[in-house]
Amino acid sequence: MKPINVGLLGIGTVGSGTFRVLQRNSEEISRRAGCAIRITMVADKDVARAKAIVGDTAQVTADALDVINNPQIDIVVELIGGYTIARELILKAIASGKHVVTANKALLALHGNEIFSAARARGVTVTFEAAVGGGIPIIKSLREGLTANRIEWIAGIINGTSNFILSEMRAKGAAFADVLQEAQRMGYAEADPTFDIEGVDAAHKLAIMAAIGFGIPVQFSKVHVEGIAKLAQEDIRYAEELGYRIKLLGIAKRKPGGFELRVHPTLIPARQLIANVEGVMNAILVKGDAVGQTMYYGAGAGAEPTASAVVADLVDVARMLTADPEHRVPHLAFQPDRLSDVPILPMGEVETSYYLRLRVADKAGVLADITRILADQGISIEALMQKEPHAGEEHVDIILLTHLTQEKKIDIAIQRIEALPVVSGNITRIRMESLQ
Amino acid sequence: MKPINVGLLGIGTVGSGTFRVLQRNSEEISRRAGCAIRITMVADKDVARAKAIVGDTAQVTADALDVINNPQIDIVVELIGGYTIARELILKAIASGKHVVTANKALLALHGNEIFSAARARGVTVTFEAAVGGGIPIIKSLREGLTANRIEWIAGIINGTSNFILSEMRAKGAAFADVLQEAQRMGYAEADPTFDIEGVDAAHKLAIMAAIGFGIPVQFSKVHVEGIAKLAQEDIRYAEELGYRIKLLGIAKRKPGGFELRVHPTLIPARQLIANVEGVMNAILVKGDAVGQTMYYGAGAGAEPTASAVVADLVDVARMLTADPEHRVPHLAFQPDRLSDVPILPMGEVETSYYLRLRVADKAGVLADITRILADQGISIEALMQKEPHAGEEHVDIILLTHLTQEKKIDIAIQRIEALPVVSGNITRIRMESLQ
Repeated sequence: MKPINVGLLGIGTVGSGTFRVLQRNSEEISRRAGCAIRITMVADKDVARAKAIVGDTAQVTADALDVINNPQIDIVVELIGGYTIARELILKAIASGKHVVTANKALLALHGNEIFSAARARGVTVTFEAAVGGGIPIIKSLREGLTANRIEWIAGIINGTSNFILSEMRAKGAAFADVLQEAQRMGYAEADPTFDIEGVDAAHKLAIMAAIGFGIPVQFSKVHVEGIAKLAQEDIRYAEELGYRIKLLGIAKRKPGGFELRVHPTLIPARQLIANVEGVMNAILVKGDAVGQTMYYGAGAGAEPTASAVVADLVDVARMLTADPEHRVPHLAFQPDRLSDVPILPMGEVETSYYLRLRVADKAGVLADITRILADQGISIEALMQKEPHAGEEHVDIILLTHLTQEKKIDIAIQRIEALPVVSGNITRIRMESLQ
Repeated sequence: MKPINVGLLGIGTVGSGTFRVLQRNSEEISRRAGCAIRITMVADKDVARAKAIVGDTAQVTADALDVINNPQIDIVVELIGGYTIARELILKAIASGKHVVTANKALLALHGNEIFSAARARGVTVTFEAAVGGGIPIIKSLREGLTANRIEWIAGIINGTSNFILSEMRAKGAAFADVLQEAQRMGYAEADPTFDIEGVDAAHKLAIMAAIGFGIPVQFSKVHVEGIAKLAQEDIRYAEELGYRIKLLGIAKRKPGGFELRVHPTLIPARQLIANVEGVMNAILVKGDAVGQTMYYGAGAGAEPTASAVVADLVDVARMLTADPEHRVPHLAFQPDRLSDVPILPMGEVETSYYLRLRVADKAGVLADITRILADQGISIEALMQKEPHAGEEHVDIILLTHLTQEKKIDIAIQRIEALPVVSGNITRIRMESLQ
């Protein structure tokens, strides 16, 4: 199958992440897309930097029009940002019959209706998974996954910078201004953080999600926007005393007379899952009348998480361009002739850590015997807890947590420990996962 | 646009949910799909029950072959379950050129490779979003949303019955057998709960997700399966003392020598978001090399959540059948000529509850003045907290939580309260959402 040629406009953080992911995962991606997807041309004002990144894999130009006018290019990826130049270039790319992938939420929030209408008229598609929630496939979920539903409301933590600041203010009892400085030092907030901390970025994303969820035009100007800059430390503390957390939420809600669209700091019950989304992570709750509540969680920014969404859009367009409609997405995601025969490991080869509970006689030397058997299998102990014996009983419960080891080693160790005369009954073994 | 005709095989819980959702949301669904989607034929052994549900909207038959052989039917929805009859009917539907939508995880886990291969050869598609995670669009997310990634691991709470039992055992300190009985009384566990509590259902779903995530054939027979039936109450308690929760996880992990596929009770750190997924809810964590961790959360079972996934598949197939590839999914999910002009409400009309913080002189009668102003606006108070005055200060902080009210009413109330001579400075107002 003929490869898909991609032209990249702007190779900053997300652009270089996109280039890197397409290179590193080219095998996985072509197994899924049914064809190779390659960046063959890059436009960036900083030609030297662009060349340093792409080497000789792609042509580099300072002029974006070189990309747009190149007949070899199938898809234009716009990662310049802003409203002015990006808008012109996208409209030109559409006019020249290119499909467009963009991460530009600000542009779509303000000019999305114009851009989508131009694309439709020209028979091309504009995709924008990366515009909301970074690598979380929230656009696809709303647009294709929840189509059965009348969407009742959407509520999301959709600005990582604000969520990082709020998380730190709560965890450290620090003031807004101090945490903002820390966020800037760590690269989680920009030198000019206005769009993030004043809620504008979240409002851009909310306007896009509301349009998709409710079937209304994109209406950024109608969103009520309040940021977190005026939040006082004591409110975070008082909220906590009352059982709440304060999060910057983007909320879109269907009401009898119309839709509510608003971004503001919000008290939410601390026991709610979304109240426990911390740091720069994003999460979007969607309430549908049939499905009930669903939530989508992940990194809302960063080079590779955002690139993950850009490349997913590229695969979507590639599948559309190369496959018959009924074979667009393979049943098992990968092309059927490119499934892997890498084996499933037998359970003995599985590596994990373990919780072991054993009942032993309350005597000296018991622990030494047990730890010796574990050490003989190369199993090291992460934690050990010995419970007090129950009244009138001679046995005590010992709980051991091990470090990573192989199932076949723990099998041998368990067998040998159970054979010790001081051990009573069988050992309970439960596997552990850190999920890191 | 010509409507899409759907034939339903089996109209039990999920089948009647599917019928209901398609009826109730026909307007939303056709605005998204670009055409009407209607169930025109139903096959069920219980013809009387089927007729009671569908009335005169669809033809009812006892013979599934009537549906499969009907040339008017575009898509066959299989909701019979089980391995034998369902397999035969799906293969026959494929042979007669029908697209197939199914929620049958057991069948796909055992015979998926055969079924997908038959569908591909015949040029039809078999979709199965409802087979894993109920209404959560996890199949679409893995298959289309995360295509940029080399998937490193998947770990999911994918059996609601088991998760309900584990949640109750922890919350109430109850024994497995007692909670199982409770779950059966509440309809969360079947009369024969073997597949759920022994991990078989989770293993079916894991085999399907692993195939899609890693690009390997569906290999149910290679999954290591352990359920929750032998879990002792004390292990849940000890795990908690050590900072862990026990969840039944389906885990698929890429390792150097092959893939691990296993279902078993697992200790996971209590601070992890997924450790806090309670009751019958499902959640799937996916780790990709580019995107990092993403999580998908929602109802894993039930009539309408499962119907949500079945209907999403129907919309997917309808979009494939009726639209040019580049217009398959409208940019804003809904057909551009069918966007709604329902207005965005002005902020004064927004209804929510409020956190108010005010600084008042520590005198008798102050609260009476404040609550009178709120009552005049019809605003009722949910909670009130008065803080001790700081040493040497004459003012105290009062925090009020209100019930639902309109923004314009709270605006008036705030203005009047701020005008009281006993109130010092401005009132801090933060909106609240219960997210229920």
